[in-house]
Amino acid sequence: MSTPTRTSFDVAHLGHVEMLTDRFDESLDFFTRVYGLKLSGRDDRSAYLRAWDDYEFHSLKLTAADTTGVGHIGYRAASAQALDRRVAAIEASDFTAHGWVEGDMGHGRAFRFEDPFGHVFELYYDTRRAEPAEDDRPSLKNMASRFTGVPPRRIDHLNLLAEDVTEFRRFMETCLGSRVTEMIQLDNGRIGGCWFTVNNKTYDLACTEEHGGGMGRLHHVTYATDQREDILRAADLFLEAGVHIETGPHKHAIQGTFFLYVWEPAGNRVELANAGARLILAPDWEPVVWTEDERRKGQAWGLKTIETFHTHGTPPVKR
Amino acid sequence: MSTPTRTSFDVAHLGHVEMLTDRFDESLDFFTRVYGLKLSGRDDRSAYLRAWDDYEFHSLKLTAADTTGVGHIGYRAASAQALDRRVAAIEASDFTAHGWVEGDMGHGRAFRFEDPFGHVFELYYDTRRAEPAEDDRPSLKNMASRFTGVPPRRIDHLNLLAEDVTEFRRFMETCLGSRVTEMIQLDNGRIGGCWFTVNNKTYDLACTEEHGGGMGRLHHVTYATDQREDILRAADLFLEAGVHIETGPHKHAIQGTFFLYVWEPAGNRVELANAGARLILAPDWEPVVWTEDERRKGQAWGLKTIETFHTHGTPPVKR
Amino acid sequence: MSTPTRTSFDVAHLGHVEMLTDRFDESLDFFTRVYGLKLSGRDDRSAYLRAWDDYEFHSLKLTAADTTGVGHIGYRAASAQALDRRVAAIEASDFTAHGWVEGDMGHGRAFRFEDPFGHVFELYYDTRRAEPAEDDRPSLKNMASRFTGVPPRRIDHLNLLAEDVTEFRRFMETCLGSRVTEMIQLDNGRIGGCWFTVNNKTYDLACTEEHGGGMGRLHHVTYATDQREDILRAADLFLEAGVHIETGPHKHAIQGTFFLYVWEPAGNRVELANAGARLILAPDWEPVVWTEDERRKGQAWGLKTIETFHTHGTPPVKR
Amino acid sequence: MSTPTRTSFDVAHLGHVEMLTDRFDESLDFFTRVYGLKLSGRDDRSAYLRAWDDYEFHSLKLTAADTTGVGHIGYRAASAQALDRRVAAIEASDFTAHGWVEGDMGHGRAFRFEDPFGHVFELYYDTRRAEPAEDDRPSLKNMASRFTGVPPRRIDHLNLLAEDVTEFRRFMETCLGSRVTEMIQLDNGRIGGCWFTVNNKTYDLACTEEHGGGMGRLHHVTYATDQREDILRAADLFLEAGVHIETGPHKHAIQGTFFLYVWEPAGNRVELANAGARLILAPDWEPVVWTEDERRKGQAWGLKTIETFHTHGTPPVKR
Repeated sequence: MSTPTRTSFDVAHLGHVEMLTDRFDESLDFFTRVYGLKLSGRDDRSAYLRAWDDYEFHSLKLTAADTTGVGHIGYRAASAQALDRRVAAIEASDFTAHGWVEGDMGHGRAFRFEDPFGHVFELYYDTRRAEPAEDDRPSLKNMASRFTGVPPRRIDHLNLLAEDVTEFRRFMETCLGSRVTEMIQLDNGRIGGCWFTVNNKTYDLACTEEHGGGMGRLHHVTYATDQREDILRAADLFLEAGVHIETGPHKHAIQGTFFLYVWEPAGNRVELANAGARLILAPDWEPVVWTEDERRKGQAWGLKTIETFHTHGTPPVKR
Repeated sequence: MSTPTRTSFDVAHLGHVEMLTDRFDESLDFFTRVYGLKLSGRDDRSAYLRAWDDYEFHSLKLTAADTTGVGHIGYRAASAQALDRRVAAIEASDFTAHGWVEGDMGHGRAFRFEDPFGHVFELYYDTRRAEPAEDDRPSLKNMASRFTGVPPRRIDHLNLLAEDVTEFRRFMETCLGSRVTEMIQLDNGRIGGCWFTVNNKTYDLACTEEHGGGMGRLHHVTYATDQREDILRAADLFLEAGVHIETGPHKHAIQGTFFLYVWEPAGNRVELANAGARLILAPDWEPVVWTEDERRKGQAWGLKTIETFHTHGTPPVKR
Repeated sequence: MSTPTRTSFDVAHLGHVEMLTDRFDESLDFFTRVYGLKLSGRDDRSAYLRAWDDYEFHSLKLTAADTTGVGHIGYRAASAQALDRRVAAIEASDFTAHGWVEGDMGHGRAFRFEDPFGHVFELYYDTRRAEPAEDDRPSLKNMASRFTGVPPRRIDHLNLLAEDVTEFRRFMETCLGSRVTEMIQLDNGRIGGCWFTVNNKTYDLACTEEHGGGMGRLHHVTYATDQREDILRAADLFLEAGVHIETGPHKHAIQGTFFLYVWEPAGNRVELANAGARLILAPDWEPVVWTEDERRKGQAWGLKTIETFHTHGTPPVKR
Repeated sequence: MSTPTRTSFDVAHLGHVEMLTDRFDESLDFFTRVYGLKLSGRDDRSAYLRAWDDYEFHSLKLTAADTTGVGHIGYRAASAQALDRRVAAIEASDFTAHGWVEGDMGHGRAFRFEDPFGHVFELYYDTRRAEPAEDDRPSLKNMASRFTGVPPRRIDHLNLLAEDVTEFRRFMETCLGSRVTEMIQLDNGRIGGCWFTVNNKTYDLACTEEHGGGMGRLHHVTYATDQREDILRAADLFLEAGVHIETGPHKHAIQGTFFLYVWEPAGNRVELANAGARLILAPDWEPVVWTEDERRKGQAWGLKTIETFHTHGTPPVKR
């Protein structure tokens, strides 16, 4: 068998996630005052947020809705030509293409499409860069905005739920040219979870099996911190702010990420994570496959995965 | 002016550096016992070393010689086809191509070429993966070898010296398809330094102006640590081991890297560095340009750059 | 009610713990190779160990036995006169005095006494300082031995089990002049746990309620690390060494200590802990009293206390 | 020669420093918004500040004046009786006693006295505890106030300048019963610097030789952080806030403290420091004596002491 090598570089990186909230004011207060994102702009339904070193106008679009979960997921293409190639690939596939939309406060026209489980994606190239206000200009010109001491440096990844992770994987490989870096192989032959990347990050999107019968659900959205210490300090700040800490700080066995999970006021799960210096640089990286037996050992240092981690997604499933 | 976008993805990453030493036994003792690399193999002239999460057989080839400095620099191509494309580009250029060599203990055939300042590069695709011995197998299967508590996780970058950095930049762009992420623009119109990358790392090679009249010289080789704390702890270990600490720990203004520089026993400068969560994800990243005036402020937190940092390279210049 | 003020300064600090092991060779290998203590000396039954900045000859005496648990606990008096005053106080009390013993490889004559639950204590003043060998001399003369990169800097505290913590408290106050810094007040009127100190450390000994019907049992022995990062790194090293990680890393609500608990090969629980910059400096510190309801919240960041933490002590209770 | 043992425990800890500023509003803004202290109270000339875990009402009294430097230094006695004993010792000495003053917003009556170099000290026992407002109550009841993510946890020490450190030492031993933990022995027979403590902290006051001909001058005031990472993060925040960073982060050879020095807007030097788990627990600790030759090696990791560190004190010397 030949070793796989990475062939597509058409998608540059995860750009933003639109998160829905039915407690908009509380969620916005959480993300700006507690979690540490900056407000780039607002319109009548949404707030556009970014971490201090996100170079684009926004990496989180927080949208008032009558429910929670994910509105859409935006990836930025590597060039205008790369965007065209991706759109052609999506249109040639059997996945649902929604077609072009005009864009957003934070970027130009985008091509929308959908996975078989109801999550809407978009690809765009033209973007709007973060324009820090006078008092938000960084001292070092290689940073996007002023450092304010908060944990999140940049958007890192999100985790979606799907009933059939194998099918979701086909979607990600076909539409985004994503690589699988790690996965869980269940004893029943199904894939329990799959970690994807379009670049040298170890993952920018994870998909784990939906156990609650929901559709189009979100498991969590994550920002990266510079150091593990930032996450320990954040845990104390979340405690003081009365935020629900679900699990962590601890280290994932899969991907080796140091993590902390909390719920924002509307119930969406949000993570802070630190990957250390880990990158996937090998062009022919072969997916690391974890068995059910290996997963039973819990997280890296032995923490048992908390029950809600298997059941809680947003929006909640109506019964 | 159109915004530049990244077009070449043919080179995957920096693979290894061959470092020359005229104190082979002492250097090898330093790299294995003090600095924290693992010995993958040896032949009669060289030791092949890797950090605990370097996935290839070696990232540092330490070679006994009658002098110090850099033997050659190896980059891994993204695929066999990508290698062919790069070789064609090099051969079509006005830079010196040495042609194919058979390879090494750590990789297959490689194409050698040379910059105008005497540094030899090679490009290869076929590689040999690190094969940890039984007692070096990691507990987590997504790691290359067992974690032993030492600072270096993987090779990060190297810094070369060249009399004409502008010309060196043309070499890197032409031969490796590298991008410039940051640079120093001197008042006299010359480029004082240039930081290059072929992937999402902020840099894998830097070139700064040679002030000593040397040719083909090395400024330093660097490994990445997971946390800044690893570097602080390393400083204490270097102190105890009697290693010459040249400067640091501190934070570079350029690239924002937390750093520590020491000299290995033969005099080659070696760095430990931590970039935090910083990556260059933007496909159309425009180089950050630093002026002389900005450089006069010193490092990020005000440390003045130490004099030897401007003068010491290996091998020493004979006068 | 008048505010209590600290009156006795006769006991300087916790000096050492004698730990029993029925797997001596494995335990010694664990403490020296994995946990990171230095071997100061040996006799036919015991190994004398210290952390790199313990100023005395030993802080852990590891003794071969047919069981596990604690042999005795040694505190160092503040002066020869202070020792005499303490001995007089013990002899005047209703607690069991064993009288003077000749001392040990690590210190001079000591006065032995016993709490009502079978734990043997000793008080001594004449001590033997750590005498690092030539290759163990530190670079900085204010350190006790060479820093070798391992987590434990000095002994910190131990935790004993007693059926009646109120009575144990009376013992500690009477015999050692210890202060209570924090405690758990159970709904049934009993004290669930009590944290004691003789100096500015937040605690040097904790006593929690024995639920297993055992006598004279040990809950754990703890060494202090300089930074929380040392504990995170240690977790990875314990994982690689196949050590049983019981719980953590996490932060205690009581005392705010960042912790990690493992079992050494014979089953004795050992902790690494970091208190940050926290000290008890107030001479009239009033004990912080935690209710059962407050304890139900789990640890500081929400981790539920693991079941074995309530049941596992050494030696195991024979049934 | 008999080994010294600690005999006096009458003084519990450094309580507060009164710092003078001729730029009161800017200094107050610095200490509250940038450095991270909390405002406990104000009167017409002073602001009373504390760190989040200082248990007393204030640890820094910032006072508007026509100059900079130190107003007075307050130590808290271990009990009312201990205070009386200390006052008797001071009155019996040849040092200048000012007598009782009524106290302050943050504590009860105090006895004032003065060293031969013009620094005013006070000793008090009755104190006022920090009373956090409703929204400043900590989640964990063993903390003095809410954690807000800022670096300073508690006051740590101050550094004074004196023309004759030997005489200053006699003052500290006589009046406060302080112990010397480390000192610099100059080749000319003078003491170049002396580090004192009244408890288990490694030092709460340092005195170094005045080279500028000033009287009663302050070298710096320091707060302790929980982790070294807090100091690295603070360096970035100082950079963004335009604060003058004088030197650091680095590690002192003397006392092994990890440090960062900045100047507050009026020019007083302020430090953040982390001692790790280091404490002076030995009752018979013998002062560590550093020679001039040893001092020439610079700080622990080789940083040369910056020139202003030898010359800058407050107030500036008028010429």
